[in-house]
Amino acid sequence: MIEAKIQTVPGFSWFGKNIGIKDQTLDFGGILSDVPCQAAGVFTRNTMPGAPVVVGREHLRDGVLQAVIVNSKNANVATQQHGIDDSKRICRMVAETCGIAPELVLPSSTGVIGRRLPMDVITRGCATLRQDFGKSLQHAESFARAIMTTDTRPKWVSARVGGATIFAVAKGAGMIEPNMATMLSYFMSDAQIPANLLQEMLARVVNQSFNRISIDSDTSTSDTVVMLCNGLAGPVDLKEFEATLLEMAIHLAKEIARDGEGATKLIELAVSGAQSADQALLTAKSVINSPLVKTAIYGADPNWGRFVMAIGKVFQYTVDIADLKIFFAAGGKRLGIDAGILDRDEVPLDEISALLKNSEMRIEIVLGDGPFSERVWGCDLTEGYVKENAYYTT
Amino acid sequence: MIEAKIQTVPGFSWFGKNIGIKDQTLDFGGILSDVPCQAAGVFTRNTMPGAPVVVGREHLRDGVLQAVIVNSKNANVATQQHGIDDSKRICRMVAETCGIAPELVLPSSTGVIGRRLPMDVITRGCATLRQDFGKSLQHAESFARAIMTTDTRPKWVSARVGGATIFAVAKGAGMIEPNMATMLSYFMSDAQIPANLLQEMLARVVNQSFNRISIDSDTSTSDTVVMLCNGLAGPVDLKEFEATLLEMAIHLAKEIARDGEGATKLIELAVSGAQSADQALLTAKSVINSPLVKTAIYGADPNWGRFVMAIGKVFQYTVDIADLKIFFAAGGKRLGIDAGILDRDEVPLDEISALLKNSEMRIEIVLGDGPFSERVWGCDLTEGYVKENAYYTT
Repeated sequence: MIEAKIQTVPGFSWFGKNIGIKDQTLDFGGILSDVPCQAAGVFTRNTMPGAPVVVGREHLRDGVLQAVIVNSKNANVATQQHGIDDSKRICRMVAETCGIAPELVLPSSTGVIGRRLPMDVITRGCATLRQDFGKSLQHAESFARAIMTTDTRPKWVSARVGGATIFAVAKGAGMIEPNMATMLSYFMSDAQIPANLLQEMLARVVNQSFNRISIDSDTSTSDTVVMLCNGLAGPVDLKEFEATLLEMAIHLAKEIARDGEGATKLIELAVSGAQSADQALLTAKSVINSPLVKTAIYGADPNWGRFVMAIGKVFQYTVDIADLKIFFAAGGKRLGIDAGILDRDEVPLDEISALLKNSEMRIEIVLGDGPFSERVWGCDLTEGYVKENAYYTT
Repeated sequence: MIEAKIQTVPGFSWFGKNIGIKDQTLDFGGILSDVPCQAAGVFTRNTMPGAPVVVGREHLRDGVLQAVIVNSKNANVATQQHGIDDSKRICRMVAETCGIAPELVLPSSTGVIGRRLPMDVITRGCATLRQDFGKSLQHAESFARAIMTTDTRPKWVSARVGGATIFAVAKGAGMIEPNMATMLSYFMSDAQIPANLLQEMLARVVNQSFNRISIDSDTSTSDTVVMLCNGLAGPVDLKEFEATLLEMAIHLAKEIARDGEGATKLIELAVSGAQSADQALLTAKSVINSPLVKTAIYGADPNWGRFVMAIGKVFQYTVDIADLKIFFAAGGKRLGIDAGILDRDEVPLDEISALLKNSEMRIEIVLGDGPFSERVWGCDLTEGYVKENAYYTT
């Protein structure tokens, strides 16, 4: 169960600071465990991943990690072998300062693509690093802030499973979909779980949470979700652990969607009555990514015809419009449109419009009487998104 | 060859007028041929097509048409059997006034989805219809204006092939991709070509033109491209005819992209060096549809890393970034980025930014040394798009 009061995990330290990669805001952060951790990771499917993703996959191969080092403001992507060398050099510097092996360090970078990391600045930042780490909640919060890019707020969550604690941090904002995205998330726990089980568990959890959010249909080159378990609290019930992990991951995924670039509204979209899991997911993604649906929701325009269009552009599957139903729920109200009923004067357009003015809503699409359903999260498309992305960088 | 001066086609009449479907702007238009025409058509792939698309496909089955009737402001989509009955009734009314068979009339509707057509208004509009038709350029222009929705200007083009003329009209604006979209286009000619050849030709032409434009990645329920040949000018060279048709269709497709909702810039995107035609097209669509690429171009931000991201999210194919090159051409200049060269200080970012301020540009992506290439057209993503679509309807 997610806890109202955030708790960090025994045996872990954090830091977050400014080292001047681009400006005066926090841009460098790290996680350090007192002991080596069983570890698992899921990375972007983008075919041109950032150098840290390449190095991270390599360092995770044996399922053991002890530290994570992250910089924002520069993604270290499209930097080829130089970028990989830079990422490895950072791992070596962190390892040396912390007295661990370089292969125990997972690197992440997020920010602009195509520029080499300012290694002189980072080298200076690494020198004093051991004393930057600390176990307080403030230290953890600094870390959560240091990994932010266009996020407007830090994202974190914690939970208890038996005698163990799980604490997780994430960043999001844009380039989110369909396989995670400029999304970094780190899960830490003192539970004792072997890396191979952890890896299977994390893959399932990511698929049902971070892989179900969409901000703008772009897919980042840097996506990373990593979990570290130091084992200090001993074994836990694995079923309960995974359920809790999923709850936390969905919580963070929703936080990311809610804080999407320029977003003013969080949309939970449930598609049911599908003939297959594939139809349910393709339909959900088609609707949550449709610019015309997203702008309609931004404008609180009950233009449900755009949903019909977005459902119909999943060419692989046919839906009988006579069976189609769309429900809008927010602020304790739930209003429906039965596309099979032709007396459109019955559709409460004004009430739906009022409902769409809420900052959080659930939309349910019933395709027919099939047994498959799917749930995704997204946000509206606003002038703010355009502004933020037209004038970002350079 | 496309002609600078628009010419209509002998044997065809047009009209465009306001009948008050929604407001006082032109909303009802038609095309009428003096004689039955060999005809061909290509329609939306959306699985929930509008009623006129269903009726149009039926009326085109024998390859003969003599008239087209179009209303804007209401798409007659998601209206089930009632909508089909309404569309057929309109065809009957037009046929009766014009003294032809109802099956010779192709209906089109464009506008809001989910409302029944105001049949009383349309019935009144049909009563005087025979005298509305006329053969002047003004009549043709009224038709081009009557089919507009959020288009800011009418779109038309004409050309000569041997002794024959081709004249074509289109509307576009939003919901454009990847298989035509709220896009209606009508081609008329006095060439004599059998319907079966015409159908094959039109399918090839549409695939290389209208199917290569993208405004917002949404796919309309109403897309229709229809061609009518009255045969009055006799046979023509078919190769030349098809080449001219393609030139005209690309011209109209570019006009549609240029006039995309909120668009300020026309982008021609060429992808070359691909290992397969599929890779070339998927990559071109991924880039031209990427909100982050589109907003960067809007802001004249030379953020080429977003191209790398968009190329890399075509998960099916791997690109070696060392081979990747991106060229920007506009206003007589052409500037390149060689992603394989790591000295990024060499990249003329300021010059590229200045180039991106042009209202029309060509972007070339070279993926490697493969033999396949592809060309698509699109536009930038602006606050104007969001505004137009957040507050359209209801």
